[in-house]
Amino acid sequence: MRFQLVFKYVATLLFFLSLSYFIPFFYSLWCKDGLFHYYLYPVALTGALFLIALQIEGGELNIKEALLTVSLTWFLFPAISALVYQETGAIKNFIDAYFESVSGFTTTGASILTNIEALPKSVLLWRSTTHWIGGVGFVVFSLSVLPAFGAGGAQLMRFEASKAVEERLVPKVKEMARVILAVYVALTAAEVIALVAAGMPLYDAVNHAFATIATGGFSTKNGSIGEYHSPLIEVIVSFFMLAGATNLLTYYLALKNRSLKAIYSYYEFRSFMAIVAFAVAFTTLVLYFKGTYHSLLEALRFGSFAVISAITTTGFGVADYTKWPPVTQALMMLLEIMGGSSGSTAGGLKQFRIVTMAKTTYYEMKKTLHPRMVYRIVLGKKVVDYSLMNNIWAFISIFFSTTLLFGFLISLSGHDIITSFSASVACITGSGPGLEKVGPAGNFAFFSPIDKLLLSIEMVLGRLEVMSVLTLLLPSFWKE
Amino acid sequence: MRFQLVFKYVATLLFFLSLSYFIPFFYSLWCKDGLFHYYLYPVALTGALFLIALQIEGGELNIKEALLTVSLTWFLFPAISALVYQETGAIKNFIDAYFESVSGFTTTGASILTNIEALPKSVLLWRSTTHWIGGVGFVVFSLSVLPAFGAGGAQLMRFEASKAVEERLVPKVKEMARVILAVYVALTAAEVIALVAAGMPLYDAVNHAFATIATGGFSTKNGSIGEYHSPLIEVIVSFFMLAGATNLLTYYLALKNRSLKAIYSYYEFRSFMAIVAFAVAFTTLVLYFKGTYHSLLEALRFGSFAVISAITTTGFGVADYTKWPPVTQALMMLLEIMGGSSGSTAGGLKQFRIVTMAKTTYYEMKKTLHPRMVYRIVLGKKVVDYSLMNNIWAFISIFFSTTLLFGFLISLSGHDIITSFSASVACITGSGPGLEKVGPAGNFAFFSPIDKLLLSIEMVLGRLEVMSVLTLLLPSFWKE
Ligand SMILES: [K+]
Ligand SMILES: [K+]
Repeated sequence: MRFQLVFKYVATLLFFLSLSYFIPFFYSLWCKDGLFHYYLYPVALTGALFLIALQIEGGELNIKEALLTVSLTWFLFPAISALVYQETGAIKNFIDAYFESVSGFTTTGASILTNIEALPKSVLLWRSTTHWIGGVGFVVFSLSVLPAFGAGGAQLMRFEASKAVEERLVPKVKEMARVILAVYVALTAAEVIALVAAGMPLYDAVNHAFATIATGGFSTKNGSIGEYHSPLIEVIVSFFMLAGATNLLTYYLALKNRSLKAIYSYYEFRSFMAIVAFAVAFTTLVLYFKGTYHSLLEALRFGSFAVISAITTTGFGVADYTKWPPVTQALMMLLEIMGGSSGSTAGGLKQFRIVTMAKTTYYEMKKTLHPRMVYRIVLGKKVVDYSLMNNIWAFISIFFSTTLLFGFLISLSGHDIITSFSASVACITGSGPGLEKVGPAGNFAFFSPIDKLLLSIEMVLGRLEVMSVLTLLLPSFWKE
Repeated sequence: MRFQLVFKYVATLLFFLSLSYFIPFFYSLWCKDGLFHYYLYPVALTGALFLIALQIEGGELNIKEALLTVSLTWFLFPAISALVYQETGAIKNFIDAYFESVSGFTTTGASILTNIEALPKSVLLWRSTTHWIGGVGFVVFSLSVLPAFGAGGAQLMRFEASKAVEERLVPKVKEMARVILAVYVALTAAEVIALVAAGMPLYDAVNHAFATIATGGFSTKNGSIGEYHSPLIEVIVSFFMLAGATNLLTYYLALKNRSLKAIYSYYEFRSFMAIVAFAVAFTTLVLYFKGTYHSLLEALRFGSFAVISAITTTGFGVADYTKWPPVTQALMMLLEIMGGSSGSTAGGLKQFRIVTMAKTTYYEMKKTLHPRMVYRIVLGKKVVDYSLMNNIWAFISIFFSTTLLFGFLISLSGHDIITSFSASVACITGSGPGLEKVGPAGNFAFFSPIDKLLLSIEMVLGRLEVMSVLTLLLPSFWKE
C-alpha cells in the first residue's frame, strides 16, 4: 500500500470536486447574501493539499490503493461540505451537517432539516449541487473535467460503477466518462427548460433538476414537489426521474445510431418499465378502491408519482404515503429495494440483478421437472458465467445482510421496527424516505448522533455497492 | 400424466396416514370422552379409497406424477383432519379447521383457537399428533411403515427432503426412512420421560414431546410452556427443540460410530449452534440492559428460550416477546427465517444455505481484491458445483419472493405491515408466531377466510420447500 500515492489521488479528487463550490459562490455573489467567501475556503483548503500532491510522483494505482482512494474521498469530501454548512450557520451541529452532506453526495436525500426554506438560498443551491456531483460519481466527474489521472482512473472508476457497466467502460475510460457527463448535463438542462416552461421559477428549476437527474430527492421546499400543486410539474419530474434511472450509456448509443431503440430495447429498461407499469396500476387501484382518493385520476396522479419516486430511488414527495393503506407502503419499500438500471444514478439492487434472480428461479423450477436440463442466463446479449453469477448473488446477500445489520443497530436505540428497518432501506438504496417516523413527511433529525453516523456510513456503503468498501474490513486488505 | 397412478398413491398415502387416528382413538376409549368413533371415520373413508387403489396396477412414478402425488396429499389430508375437528365439535368452521390442520401437519403451530384448554383432550392429542406425523414427513412416515411403494417412493421423498439430504438418501431410500423414523421415535420417547421426570403430567408430556421433536409448537395450554412456570421444563424443551432442528441422519451415524462426533462436527450443526450462542448472548444482554428483566439470570432464561424456539422454528412461548425491545423482536423474525439444519424437522432457509451465502460473500469480497482468484464453496466434504449453487440461490430468491407476495396479499386486507409480513414469515418458515397481532400471545383467528386459505397454502409451500409445489403452476407441467 503506497499511502503517499493514495494521498496524492485523494487530494487531487478533493480539489477538483471542490471546484463545484463555484456554483454557490457565483450565485451568492449574484444574489448578494454575503456568504460567497465561505465557498472559497474549501477550494483554498483542498488547493493547498493539491499543491502538496503535485510534488508526489504519480503512478498506476493497484486495486487496493484505488479502493482506499475512492472510499476515503467519499468519506472526506462530505466532511468538508459539513464545515461549509456549519460556517454559513445553516446547520449548527457537525454530525447533522455531515449526515446532510453524505445524504447529498450519495443522492440519498434523507434530511435532518425541519425547515428547509429557512436556509439561505446559496446554501440550498450547494445542497442540490451535492446531489448533482454525487449522482454522476466523483470519479466520472473528475475524470471528465481533468486529464490528470493515468490508467489509475480506470481502477478508480471500477468501484463507482456497477459491474455490468464497468466492463464495457474500461477500454476507453476517459472517453466514456466524458460521454456520461455530457448526457448528464444535457438531461439536466432539458429538465430546467421544461420546468421553467411549466411555470417553476428558474432557481427552483435548477435545484430540482439537479436533484431529479441525480435521483437525489432534496427539494428547496418543505413540501417537496407537492408544494407546487401542479400536475404538469409532477409529470415532468416523473419523466426525468425515469430518465435518471436509465443507463446513461444507452442515450449515447441512441444519439450515435439516431434511434431510440438503444434505450427501449435494453433489457434493464424493459424490466424496469414493466415493474413501473405494474406498480402504478396496482397502487392506483388500491388507492381508489380503498377510498384514499375519490377519483381514479387523483389516485393515478399521486400513485404514479410515489411509485416512480420510489423505484428510481429519488424520494421526492407529493403525497405522504405513510397515510395510505399498508400494502402500498410495503410496496414503496420493495420498489426502493429494486431500484433502477445499472449505469444510471439510481440505487437499490438494480434491474440486472432482479432479472438474473427471476431468470434463475424460472429455470430452476423447470429443472425440477427436467433434472438433466442445462440452461444459461443471458443478460442483454451477454451470457452470465459462473463467476459473474456468484458475484451477483454475493452482492444480493451482502446488500440484504448490510440492510439488516444497520436496521438492527438503529432499532437497538429503541426505535420501532418499521422506522429502523425502513430507514436502513432508505439509506442503503439511496432512496431517502422510509416509513413511519422517516416517511415522506418526516425527517432524520430525531436520530441520535451515533445513529446518524451509522446511517451516513450505510449511505456510502450503498453508493459504492457495499462490497468494495467492506473489503477494507478484511484483514488481507492491509497485508502486503 | 397417469392420473390413475397418482390416485393410487395418493389414496395409499392417505390411508396409511389415517392409521395415525388410532392414537386419539385409543386415548378416547381410555378416557371415555365418547368421541372415539369420530376417529374411525377417516380410516373407513380412506380405507375405501385404498381398496379401490389396490385394483390399480402399480408402477414407477415419474417426476411430475410424484410431485402431484405429494402436493395433493399435503392439501387433502388436512381436509380430512378438518372434518374430524368439525365433527367432534372442536372447531365449528371448516376454513378454521382446515387452517388448524395444515398448521399442524406443516409443523407451523399457528392457531386459530382462542381457548385451547376448552377442547376435548383426545382432540388436543390428535392436534399434537398432526405435528408428529407432519414433522417426519408424510412419505418418510409411510415408507417406514409400509413396503407398498416401489421405486416411486424415492421420487416421492425427493420433494419432501432438502436437496442436501436427498442425495445421500436416494440409494437406499427405505432403510434410511426407517432409520429416520427410529431416531424420531427414540427422541420423542426420551423427551416424554424427561418431561415426566421433571413433573409434567404424562398426557401433557406426550403432547409436548410430539410438538417439540416435530418443531411444531402446538401446546395443550393456553399459556404454552410458560404455564408450567418451571425452568427445568423449559431447559428440557429447549434441549429437544435443538435436537429436532438437527439433521436426524447424524444421530444414526453417531449411533453407528458410537461417537457424538458425527453430530457436533457436522458443519450445519456448528453454524447453527454458533448462531444460537450469539443470539442468546445478544438477547440476554439487551433484555437485561434495557431493563426488561431485572436479573441477568431471568434475561437468560426467557431470552434463550425465545431464541431457541425461534431458530428451531418451533414457536413455543414462555414470554411474550412482542413486549420486548424492538431489536429483539426483529431478531426473532430473522432467526425464524434462518431455521435449522437440513434433514431436520425445522423450516426456514436452513443452515446449509446460510453457510453457502456467507462463504460466497466472503470469497467474492476477497475476489474484489484479487480478481483472478478462483475459489470453491465446500459444504461438509462436498464441493458445491454450479448446478447446486444455482439451485440454492434460486431457492433463496423464491423463498423471499413468496414471503413478500403473501405478505402483500395479507396486507391488502388492511392489516398493518408488521402483522402481515411477520404472519407470512411465520407461515413459510413453519415457525408459528410472528409479531404484533400474530405474536406469541396472539392467534390467527381474526384473519378473513380468504387470508386463512392463503396462509394455509403458504404453509404447505414452506413445508415442501416452495419450488416443487410452484412447478405445478408452470404451463409445461401439464404438457406431455
Ligand atoms: K434519493
Ligand atoms: K413451528
